[in-house]
Amino acid sequence: MAEYIEPLQRLAEQFGRLEGIGRKTALRLAFSVLEMSGEEAADFAQAVIDAKTKIHLCPVCQNLTDAEKCSVCADEGRDRSVICVVEDPRAVMSIEKVREFKGLYHVLHGAISPMNGITPEKLKIKELLARCEDPQVSEIIVATNPNVEGEATAMYLSRLLKPLGIKVTRLAYGVPVGADLEYADEVTLFRALEGRRDV
Amino acid sequence: MAEYIEPLQRLAEQFGRLEGIGRKTALRLAFSVLEMSGEEAADFAQAVIDAKTKIHLCPVCQNLTDAEKCSVCADEGRDRSVICVVEDPRAVMSIEKVREFKGLYHVLHGAISPMNGITPEKLKIKELLARCEDPQVSEIIVATNPNVEGEATAMYLSRLLKPLGIKVTRLAYGVPVGADLEYADEVTLFRALEGRRDV
Repeated sequence: MAEYIEPLQRLAEQFGRLEGIGRKTALRLAFSVLEMSGEEAADFAQAVIDAKTKIHLCPVCQNLTDAEKCSVCADEGRDRSVICVVEDPRAVMSIEKVREFKGLYHVLHGAISPMNGITPEKLKIKELLARCEDPQVSEIIVATNPNVEGEATAMYLSRLLKPLGIKVTRLAYGVPVGADLEYADEVTLFRALEGRRDV
Repeated sequence: MAEYIEPLQRLAEQFGRLEGIGRKTALRLAFSVLEMSGEEAADFAQAVIDAKTKIHLCPVCQNLTDAEKCSVCADEGRDRSVICVVEDPRAVMSIEKVREFKGLYHVLHGAISPMNGITPEKLKIKELLARCEDPQVSEIIVATNPNVEGEATAMYLSRLLKPLGIKVTRLAYGVPVGADLEYADEVTLFRALEGRRDV
């Protein structure tokens, strides 16, 4: 008996396939399931199935949705002239929480990373270009992550969209609000200085 | 759109019910499921169901098993005169990994903790007493966790079993005080088994 019994081992392996879950955590989670009632475990399993079968991509912005269109695209009150381009659905939620941006989104589902085999063709860039053919669209805010891949993607989109006469902007770099200057890295501080504004 | 879409939200809530999973981690895990293929998600859901339906307690030692008896109780080569009493199935695995203990186990499924409403009646102590009626049984090694509840349980069992003429021993303090058996390393566990003492 060097291994756990098979159904437990298999459940732990399934948990271990989830992002950021190691071997010990996977086992702890599997034991957690055993402590549930049969009904709770069935609900859990059903939630997994439902998430996979009911959720699909919004045909307009490629965000996740369980309706025909996502709630942002379906909202008639949103400004259709600005599209905020993000890497994943989590970024949409982060920006929505600010309650400041009233335009639409476009989810790329990744960032260009030739090292990892992610070429522009693998992202939802084709779909973004199609949306940009609408003369209503006047600005694209590129809100990809502030790292090498996100930067490369922003550059790529900028070269693609500027010839179409669309304004392409990027989120400002700077020191995070509430943080301590002491802990800001040099590149961030440099960008913050570079982008300084009149008070 | 202040909330995530319903099926995703519901899946995240399900993950959030698992031990040690907070809100942010639960969401990350839910997104992980969305990145699986439909088949993988179905396998995951099935593993949850199977773990719950196929696993039950061994009628002898109360450890988890998917067979009639657990593999230790079913093993004719084990020494039936020594029973190692542990709090949970994870502790059985930890001790089995040492490959030193050749006796049987008994899983209490908890430790006495009046503060949390866990009285001796709620543990598998009745079942342990029934096993101790077998004259073959000569020693009970109490390997409950080295904390207050585990200590109290050891004392309780000692008072209960000594009058029956059974030797009751406790793991030596080699196991770090206040820790969990699950996380003890094999050498420490080996020393603890080797140095066990009368309670």
